[in-house]
Amino acid sequence: MELLQVFDYLGVFVFAITGAMLAARKEMDIFGFVVLALVPAIGGGTLRDLILSEPVVWFSDTTYLFIALLAALITFFAVRFMSRLSDVLLWFDALGLSVFCAIGSAKAMAVTGDPVIGVVMGVITAVAGGILRDVIANETPLVLHKEVYATAAFCGSVCYVLASLYIADFALVLSVAAAFVVRALGIMLGLSLPVSGYKLPD
Amino acid sequence: MELLQVFDYLGVFVFAITGAMLAARKEMDIFGFVVLALVPAIGGGTLRDLILSEPVVWFSDTTYLFIALLAALITFFAVRFMSRLSDVLLWFDALGLSVFCAIGSAKAMAVTGDPVIGVVMGVITAVAGGILRDVIANETPLVLHKEVYATAAFCGSVCYVLASLYIADFALVLSVAAAFVVRALGIMLGLSLPVSGYKLPD
Amino acid sequence: MELLQVFDYLGVFVFAITGAMLAARKEMDIFGFVVLALVPAIGGGTLRDLILSEPVVWFSDTTYLFIALLAALITFFAVRFMSRLSDVLLWFDALGLSVFCAIGSAKAMAVTGDPVIGVVMGVITAVAGGILRDVIANETPLVLHKEVYATAAFCGSVCYVLASLYIADFALVLSVAAAFVVRALGIMLGLSLPVSGYKLPD
Repeated sequence: MELLQVFDYLGVFVFAITGAMLAARKEMDIFGFVVLALVPAIGGGTLRDLILSEPVVWFSDTTYLFIALLAALITFFAVRFMSRLSDVLLWFDALGLSVFCAIGSAKAMAVTGDPVIGVVMGVITAVAGGILRDVIANETPLVLHKEVYATAAFCGSVCYVLASLYIADFALVLSVAAAFVVRALGIMLGLSLPVSGYKLPD
Repeated sequence: MELLQVFDYLGVFVFAITGAMLAARKEMDIFGFVVLALVPAIGGGTLRDLILSEPVVWFSDTTYLFIALLAALITFFAVRFMSRLSDVLLWFDALGLSVFCAIGSAKAMAVTGDPVIGVVMGVITAVAGGILRDVIANETPLVLHKEVYATAAFCGSVCYVLASLYIADFALVLSVAAAFVVRALGIMLGLSLPVSGYKLPD
Repeated sequence: MELLQVFDYLGVFVFAITGAMLAARKEMDIFGFVVLALVPAIGGGTLRDLILSEPVVWFSDTTYLFIALLAALITFFAVRFMSRLSDVLLWFDALGLSVFCAIGSAKAMAVTGDPVIGVVMGVITAVAGGILRDVIANETPLVLHKEVYATAAFCGSVCYVLASLYIADFALVLSVAAAFVVRALGIMLGLSLPVSGYKLPD
């Protein structure tokens, strides 16, 4: 579980960078960077918690907010450097996606016990923040176009629900692994959009 | 009440098709179809339940999710066929709109007892999903432009609130009928946008 | 506190006008005016209350809804007149912004006691409605571009949190004053976008 928390923070950091990079492309001011960093970083989890009628996760742990803020500031001051890291960031983004869907499914299963809700909430946790980010920046959401992204979250969430029902142990690990493998195949087979939003236009 | 449940499911199905047709026009992938089908189908009710601090309706009845999913898949594989049905769909959409505003007002009145909230929540239930759908697809919401659509939801909601306060019986039936008649007049007098989003561009 | 309530209503009224003016520029129908008036007027507070798991503020006081409705109708029938008032409206908008961030921080501090959440919720209360308004009208949010607007809300919220922790008295007054001064400097130094959305294009 300790490792999962580290991965969760890492996911928040990398998701926040996607938002800040988009703010850079849209030539926003520093507040735009902060908002567009926070939205993908905590938007999916916030929507999940609201729908589950649970306390929002960053209420009890404001670390999430500071991590997203840090990502926004770093990107604001070193946007060219971040853009050069795009290939690396794509893999950390895949890790974040995988962790988010596993955590989302786990929380929904713990609250409702319904496998269908478990899958839906896993996908929402992983992709809703990114959709909100693109909507706020007035772009058609990336994830709704051809990309093995939501599919990876779906596989990870199904894997969590099945494993938690029939195997009990290692459900989180299996779920993260399943989502990551599917996303990695998508990236390596060239099905993902170029650098998934981590790059500035030339 | 049984008939109302059938109409409610029918409304979810037809609203989901509006979203899937929009995904088709935007050339999205299958996940885009599913998201854009779910948003109008359950978005209005979800927002209503969140604001009312009630458990989200599709938690206790996941049938809603499967109906929207089915609509997304059918539209994905038979989009030309759906486009040809546009005139029929427009009338089922009017039925969905009418049922949604009646159910929304009824739930809000049951929870708060406030007539103003009853009307506002009826309109939100009926139109918020469609607004969200258009916002996510990066279009200016159809319903905010000239169309006797929100007006129909408003009339249905007012009718429910008045009937539940002063007549008590048949409030749901009267509300559905009022919204449907207003919407039908709008369609027949040519005030609605052509085929209301159920048609592909030629 | 009486004065604060008056200022709060005034803020709702002026924020609603921003939305209605945007509806006018987008040539929407009367329902578009009402929706785009309601969203900035009550959107920020609604999102704050949902995240705080508190009852939505306009449930217990529907005056907010009627004020926004009134602003929508006045703007609909006198849009040229409102456009000529743009310089005055800009200052009332600054007052609304200042009151909203103070009230948002106060409510968040009362519920959670966490200074970080207090600041975040103050900013959300003040700016989220405006972001939603622009997103629904399919525009890139004004506030994410260069404008001393969110910064003013941030200063006001920080001021409230610090004053409530270390001074106790006058926290609301100090917070409103701080936000207003920062915003006023922004307007007077020409850092705000021309007339901030209160003017029709010529």
